[in-house]
Amino acid sequence: MDLETRIARLEAIEAIRQLKHRYFRACDTKQVDIMRECFVDGDAHIDYGAVGTFQHRDALVALFEKVGCHPHMVEMHHGQNPEISITSADTAEGIWGLFYYLINTEENTLTQLGGFYHDEYRCEQGAWKISRTVFRVHSMQVHRLLDGQVLSVMAGNPAV
Amino acid sequence: MDLETRIARLEAIEAIRQLKHRYFRACDTKQVDIMRECFVDGDAHIDYGAVGTFQHRDALVALFEKVGCHPHMVEMHHGQNPEISITSADTAEGIWGLFYYLINTEENTLTQLGGFYHDEYRCEQGAWKISRTVFRVHSMQVHRLLDGQVLSVMAGNPAV
Amino acid sequence: MDLETRIARLEAIEAIRQLKHRYFRACDTKQVDIMRECFVDGDAHIDYGAVGTFQHRDALVALFEKVGCHPHMVEMHHGQNPEISITSADTAEGIWGLFYYLINTEENTLTQLGGFYHDEYRCEQGAWKISRTVFRVHSMQVHRLLDGQVLSVMAGNPAV
Repeated sequence: MDLETRIARLEAIEAIRQLKHRYFRACDTKQVDIMRECFVDGDAHIDYGAVGTFQHRDALVALFEKVGCHPHMVEMHHGQNPEISITSADTAEGIWGLFYYLINTEENTLTQLGGFYHDEYRCEQGAWKISRTVFRVHSMQVHRLLDGQVLSVMAGNPAV
Repeated sequence: MDLETRIARLEAIEAIRQLKHRYFRACDTKQVDIMRECFVDGDAHIDYGAVGTFQHRDALVALFEKVGCHPHMVEMHHGQNPEISITSADTAEGIWGLFYYLINTEENTLTQLGGFYHDEYRCEQGAWKISRTVFRVHSMQVHRLLDGQVLSVMAGNPAV
Repeated sequence: MDLETRIARLEAIEAIRQLKHRYFRACDTKQVDIMRECFVDGDAHIDYGAVGTFQHRDALVALFEKVGCHPHMVEMHHGQNPEISITSADTAEGIWGLFYYLINTEENTLTQLGGFYHDEYRCEQGAWKISRTVFRVHSMQVHRLLDGQVLSVMAGNPAV
């Protein structure tokens, strides 16, 4: 590879890392416009398991506005251990871990969740976007806010 | 941008990421000299909300030595989701999430806290330093160490 | 440094970051072949404190298969705050934080643990590998899964 191609590859990895970080921040601050812009405009594949599968970013945003955008849903999405591979000048793949924590002040529950994303990215007009993302939960515990008692546990899927 | 400028930009992002990581490590290992060196020497703006606002790194270090540097304060500062932008050859901005956990063996409490930093950085004599940092808590729970009971909750500020 | 050397240094940092991330993922998904390939083949120094000290990757993998590779051990290894320094064309050092969480459905316990790695890396035939790694626990709490009660606490070693 020539120097320019090597630099472009490093720039793409950095841009994709920041794209996913911006997505996670938008989830927590409930900034739906920033969230929408993280995905390609057009056909996408967003498979969030039990949350739902969506063929376009607008369908994800609509669900997020309905379910997540309430003051009693206080969320924390922290991206972990990114492994990003550039597969061509305008396509890339990524594996991420997630640490998620929800304080739900209506249900009075605390939920901690870990899982993995398998993503694909596309560069459109100079901007990297998420074109495909599959998330699977690896472990989850729900605690009662009052006394910390564990209400339910979903413990692991080593096959992920 | 020419190749050298593009490389310098990537180097600056990496240096700033490691600067903030070094700062978080110094918080947890209580290495005040490393902490002090993370900030510019001279006027700074360090706004840590309820913890205090400081105009010079020495004021932050003095408070940290008084409040934090005790064996009963066992802290964990993990930087999350960094979004770093280079704004000129020697200035930059960054947004970070924080995952914070405190075991206080004197008060017998466990505190988990999430929040966001909005930072500015300056390169002085070849070294990137924090010149401005504003931190706001997004969520917090305090549990009693004995039985895990929740003592207090501060649940979210979606406007952050 | 000439441009090619500066690019190679950035590429090495990125490769080492992804090496460690791949290692953490392999721990959680119990993929022992991926785990083994993260270390040099030959003499290594793997000091994981109370877990054991190993002179070759095969000894670590054998213990992991015996102790960790069970459906009741649901683990989360999230690498934090990496500080990676390239020390020559084929050697490097790194400091990492760890956020670890274990759901043990046999013992009915939840374990949260924080600590630090001090690592050395070597580039062999174009691939970066871990040649030396020392991990020390900084804090740990074990909760009973049933009711969240704290069973034990190991609170900090600021000298790390």
